[in-house]
Amino acid sequence: MTDTPQIEVVEGDITAVQGFLAGGDRCGLKPSGRKDVGAILSERPAMAAGTFTTNKVKAAPVLLCQEALARVGGGVSHARAIVFNSGNANAMTGAAGLANARRMQAAFAEGPGSRYGVRPEEVFVASTGVIGVPLDMGKLVPGIRALALSREGGTAAVQAMMTTDTVPKTAAARFAVAGANGGAVTVAGMAKGAAMIAPHMATMLAFVGTDAAVEGAYLQKALLHAVQDSFNMIIIDGDMSTNDTTLLLANGAAWAPGREPLDGSQPECVPFEQALGHVCLGLAQAMARDGEGATKFVEVRVDGAASDADARTVARAIAGSTLLKAAVLGADPNWGRIACAAGYAGAALDPDRLEVTIGRVRVVEAGLATDYDQGAAAAEMQGKEVRLGVHLHLGGGSATAWGCDLTPEYVRLNSDYTT
Amino acid sequence: MTDTPQIEVVEGDITAVQGFLAGGDRCGLKPSGRKDVGAILSERPAMAAGTFTTNKVKAAPVLLCQEALARVGGGVSHARAIVFNSGNANAMTGAAGLANARRMQAAFAEGPGSRYGVRPEEVFVASTGVIGVPLDMGKLVPGIRALALSREGGTAAVQAMMTTDTVPKTAAARFAVAGANGGAVTVAGMAKGAAMIAPHMATMLAFVGTDAAVEGAYLQKALLHAVQDSFNMIIIDGDMSTNDTTLLLANGAAWAPGREPLDGSQPECVPFEQALGHVCLGLAQAMARDGEGATKFVEVRVDGAASDADARTVARAIAGSTLLKAAVLGADPNWGRIACAAGYAGAALDPDRLEVTIGRVRVVEAGLATDYDQGAAAAEMQGKEVRLGVHLHLGGGSATAWGCDLTPEYVRLNSDYTT
Repeated sequence: MTDTPQIEVVEGDITAVQGFLAGGDRCGLKPSGRKDVGAILSERPAMAAGTFTTNKVKAAPVLLCQEALARVGGGVSHARAIVFNSGNANAMTGAAGLANARRMQAAFAEGPGSRYGVRPEEVFVASTGVIGVPLDMGKLVPGIRALALSREGGTAAVQAMMTTDTVPKTAAARFAVAGANGGAVTVAGMAKGAAMIAPHMATMLAFVGTDAAVEGAYLQKALLHAVQDSFNMIIIDGDMSTNDTTLLLANGAAWAPGREPLDGSQPECVPFEQALGHVCLGLAQAMARDGEGATKFVEVRVDGAASDADARTVARAIAGSTLLKAAVLGADPNWGRIACAAGYAGAALDPDRLEVTIGRVRVVEAGLATDYDQGAAAAEMQGKEVRLGVHLHLGGGSATAWGCDLTPEYVRLNSDYTT
Repeated sequence: MTDTPQIEVVEGDITAVQGFLAGGDRCGLKPSGRKDVGAILSERPAMAAGTFTTNKVKAAPVLLCQEALARVGGGVSHARAIVFNSGNANAMTGAAGLANARRMQAAFAEGPGSRYGVRPEEVFVASTGVIGVPLDMGKLVPGIRALALSREGGTAAVQAMMTTDTVPKTAAARFAVAGANGGAVTVAGMAKGAAMIAPHMATMLAFVGTDAAVEGAYLQKALLHAVQDSFNMIIIDGDMSTNDTTLLLANGAAWAPGREPLDGSQPECVPFEQALGHVCLGLAQAMARDGEGATKFVEVRVDGAASDADARTVARAIAGSTLLKAAVLGADPNWGRIACAAGYAGAALDPDRLEVTIGRVRVVEAGLATDYDQGAAAAEMQGKEVRLGVHLHLGGGSATAWGCDLTPEYVRLNSDYTT
């Protein structure tokens, strides 16, 4: 990502990508009556890649996606759609839950997928919502079958993902490729995630599409790289869900016929990775900004770590510190909490080299408080966006993490029991 | 700890142990004017053991204690005292901070220690409070020199440790030993810790004394074992301080002359470890009950883990889950958050074997929700003490962790900036 940007940031959801349709509607899973079922479809077979929660308690749709990827990941490019619901996570639902996830595939193939020749095994599934409650298939199956997919359906689809999200989250970028349909390739996506779903569980779902043609192993590698620097670097409350899912479909609709798919060796891989990185980062940052109860967005930049991995560890520890998050709420330039979190992160660290900045104010140098202006440091914490920096002065590793403040509202949201 | 208890639980602080004096007073480090300087002294040389924060940013007194222990731990039993202050952590204060910690040793030896022939290097030091601010030695040195130590000074000493603690924390236990002075050995201690110190840093300090004679390596081993099941199993906010310190002094004052010190081989080691375990657990649980802003005490028991270490990992993950802590506040029998935290803890876990209980209500069996009574489960969350259980059905490992709820008051306490 040190290359000069070759991409154009654009507005749009996944339907901004050639060959993708989407739709969303309500089927009654959410007591609120809001949209709770949706789907994304590629008119042509797509190569697929995915990353999933590492929680040992995995929801049924996650198990199904992993099974499907093990199949399509073998170079067989035949992913066609993602069908999803909100209001119920289909997690800790046992064999019946897995059967219900398969019924979601079938309902999509029989319903909106039938016009496009979609087979059940070409459908990815995602769910988000309450844990441990069987899906109400009497509502969901008709809901999936009735879904209307179109180039205009992206907004409805992203609304159907939302739980405690207060804003829909989309991001898109484009880059020129000679010979592509329209002369450009688009990468675009949509996501949900704001901590957890009342009353049960945190989940992030992100669906990204591109009309580039991309070879399978490289697609997965590029996604992992983008996720590592985006979704893996946002922290709202540190609770890892049973349902976290990122899916990336590459359908080649903008690719000139006969042109080799991207495999990591072509010059176009640079803008492709930039566009994918931009979309994942945009979606991830939108989640951090929309953290439950959050009033402020926090960026933590770590430089000078012994490795990039160490830098990520330190940045995440700081952004995830309950104490720091409370300090951010109070606009308290409490650098002791930053240094403390850096110290317990587990990365290589020499306290006597530590440098800490709050916005533009360097508050710690060589492990000691500088003669900084308290008022200036506090002022840097006042805005809606707080930028913190740590320099370890050990090596060339760097990373950035994003989070939000901890507020009484967060606590209230997550202590209300909605019986 | 599966042996029949052979101990008597008693009231008292460290001065309940033969040969220990204590005292505490105010010297002006705390703007509130509360007590902020104290000390504990053994009239006779004591064997010492200690455990400390693993944070890579360690406060000066921690570095000094570790240096001292490296010396006395070599079988040389000449620890005499602990001098401490609250209101300033003496952390991230560089070489000047270390020099100030040494000046605290010297001030004690020249002041109250001079009557007892205490040398500076026989004095342990602990600090708790604000990070990164030089200690005001103009206040602290006279404060230390003026300390009055006595058998009645335990209450003043424990008050001088307190920061955001709302109650002083002490625990004591006794067991009979034929031939000991008075026929009994006492283990007793005092501690502070309620999350972090306004406005900067979390710290727990615990000082425990015994009048048993104990050999050095065994003393350290017994302390590590007790700490593992007590202080290491309480979670308030997951932030590990720069100053956490546990010190254990064994002065042999109740030991019959000529009797061999405890080395792990004698039958009396059983009640000694029980008494030490009781004191550490009592102090640790008192911290969890006094968690900043907390309204409820939470106990998480994990059984059936592949190992005790796995059980500890899972119990700590559950007790530390921000989401679960919020659910406890709201008396929400939200077992999805328990299962989720168990799943991301990192221990071996088979979701299909998972069993979860809330109080006396089994809500999950073999990974699936039972047909439990929602009202009964909610009722188990209503009280001031909430007991959660997880059985992994994998092996014989078990552990218990303690914590508290997350409240808007915690957030308010930790977002207030006291300029």
